[in-house]
Amino acid sequence: MALLATTNAAALIRRSRSWNTLFLWLYFGSYMLSALHAQQNPDSTEKKFAIAIHGGAGGDPSKWSSEYQSQRRTGLQAALDHGVALLEKRADALDVVEAVVRILEDDATFNAGRGCVLNENGEHELDASIMDGRNLQCGAVAAVKRAKNPVSLARLVMTQTKHVLLIGSGADQFGEATGVEQAEPDYFLTEQRKASWQKWKLGDKDALLHAPSTHKGEDEQLYLGTVGCVVLDVHGNLAAATSTGGLMGKRWGRVGDSPIVGAGNYADNETCAISGTGIGEEFIRRAVASDIAARMRYGHNTLAEAVTGTLTTMPAESGGVIAVDARGNVVMEFNTPGMSRATADSLGNRGVWLGRND
Amino acid sequence: MALLATTNAAALIRRSRSWNTLFLWLYFGSYMLSALHAQQNPDSTEKKFAIAIHGGAGGDPSKWSSEYQSQRRTGLQAALDHGVALLEKRADALDVVEAVVRILEDDATFNAGRGCVLNENGEHELDASIMDGRNLQCGAVAAVKRAKNPVSLARLVMTQTKHVLLIGSGADQFGEATGVEQAEPDYFLTEQRKASWQKWKLGDKDALLHAPSTHKGEDEQLYLGTVGCVVLDVHGNLAAATSTGGLMGKRWGRVGDSPIVGAGNYADNETCAISGTGIGEEFIRRAVASDIAARMRYGHNTLAEAVTGTLTTMPAESGGVIAVDARGNVVMEFNTPGMSRATADSLGNRGVWLGRND
Repeated sequence: MALLATTNAAALIRRSRSWNTLFLWLYFGSYMLSALHAQQNPDSTEKKFAIAIHGGAGGDPSKWSSEYQSQRRTGLQAALDHGVALLEKRADALDVVEAVVRILEDDATFNAGRGCVLNENGEHELDASIMDGRNLQCGAVAAVKRAKNPVSLARLVMTQTKHVLLIGSGADQFGEATGVEQAEPDYFLTEQRKASWQKWKLGDKDALLHAPSTHKGEDEQLYLGTVGCVVLDVHGNLAAATSTGGLMGKRWGRVGDSPIVGAGNYADNETCAISGTGIGEEFIRRAVASDIAARMRYGHNTLAEAVTGTLTTMPAESGGVIAVDARGNVVMEFNTPGMSRATADSLGNRGVWLGRND
Repeated sequence: MALLATTNAAALIRRSRSWNTLFLWLYFGSYMLSALHAQQNPDSTEKKFAIAIHGGAGGDPSKWSSEYQSQRRTGLQAALDHGVALLEKRADALDVVEAVVRILEDDATFNAGRGCVLNENGEHELDASIMDGRNLQCGAVAAVKRAKNPVSLARLVMTQTKHVLLIGSGADQFGEATGVEQAEPDYFLTEQRKASWQKWKLGDKDALLHAPSTHKGEDEQLYLGTVGCVVLDVHGNLAAATSTGGLMGKRWGRVGDSPIVGAGNYADNETCAISGTGIGEEFIRRAVASDIAARMRYGHNTLAEAVTGTLTTMPAESGGVIAVDARGNVVMEFNTPGMSRATADSLGNRGVWLGRND
């Protein structure tokens, strides 16, 4: 048997010389093609870190005042810069998404934390979630009123309880017990939001109940919702965080997708990190964030194919997502006229956009 | 070129005669094997309708009193019989899952509706969800106290609002506004549950916060949670419903997977209908119901492969699911010592089980 094998091997070597030459050329050709491809598509080059953030989808940014456009760009840029600075210092993805979302929550321009929209009764009710791609650990809160930074309360749910989702006054009691920074109602409710709410109050508030999918108004700010951040850190870990004040004039304890892990937020090192924004109901019924990851995991889609695939199943103008995979590919896609967003990576790519192209 | 093709074709036909004979035998052999397989596995035959129900996973049924075992079997059987009667009358899947879960909610033996467990303060807080596989329409409520049948309130969220998830007192206000049947606290809180709660109160209640994954106790009834139903109707439609009283002594507005579409409940005619039971946190972080459907949709798994695949990723003793696909295949799998469950189909298969084999 050994002799036979040796003889065959010698014959094979003779026969395979021309094959070897062919393989060598094929290998060399593939290498050149892939190098060319990488140059044309910087996203296919592996990155040390990558970050994407959003400040909500919906509305047509070209109709906003230049002052409001500028406020949003400045806010996104500040959050992005802080995230990049942390990532350059080798910070963990989980710390970065929390820190970045805190900045967006603190910025009254966005509908999360300070500057959130008001519910039917003129009160604020905040939702947030956070997820660690290393181990699927996650935490979320819905309809909370007391934590200055709901995303940090969500992280405490993750780290200090074995629960995933705490809601309402129970979640606020938990927050007080942990000592997380509290804030008075006046902190959250800006004069601008109160004015918008008065305007909404004069309109048909029932319209929000019966047609949240068409919650359009002259005041575009009414329905700009949600902030979020997804990160790949230099250690190769993914994380995602999402925070929102929900829908203007929302009633009846309505909860959207932001605090629902698998719908508006998801992170798994094996696939991707996702944060969504838009009509939460459409995100929940399709488990959007989980569906995107599943298309990668089971359908072997690229991140871009997965995001496009899922968004294609959604009604027009239902929102968008930001996503990053383990190689640092970033996808920011939406089926609304605009999505306030920004991205940066370790290769030096940077950008802030409100509408489709600017 | 045409001439060359013709010549080659003639040569090919001569050469392929022996192949044709082989293929014919292979085809015939496959047919015989598949027919034999279908006989051995009645589940692979297409069914007119199929139904599965569960009354919660967890605990070791062999340690329960025979009276308690009997109560649970009787309850499951009654719910199953009602479901089958409706399905034989060509009822819609959505109506059947609601009707069956209402029966289980009304039965004080199960931890849903009447007979639910008590939270930390000795109060009841109920969660439920329902989903229509025809169109992904869904509705859910969390932490409600007033609706006699939370599953029916969840259905009203689906049909009378454009929202998916309403929580707390807002959801109860919505229920009152719709005229859905209301009940006083005493209706929900049975003497047996109050006694269990007293017993729990004397124990270490903090243990529930820090280790819900080990919420074991001498009183097995403490942590038997959740009821659910999945159905394929004669029209080829799927639906799922889930309802629960949650964890004994739960605090801080903890919400589990039952009202989270994609985690503890899901239905899509293209894949399957699912209802879960167990440690809700583990179901949420993996979007279990959505993940099972995704394994079918993108990974082309059978229902059984998909359910096993997802459960394999979960920690030991975290729970189980019931599932039915569009062909009427039923899968009921769990990684706990037992899961109270029952199934029936149009081929006359019937069964009620508490433990692994009985």
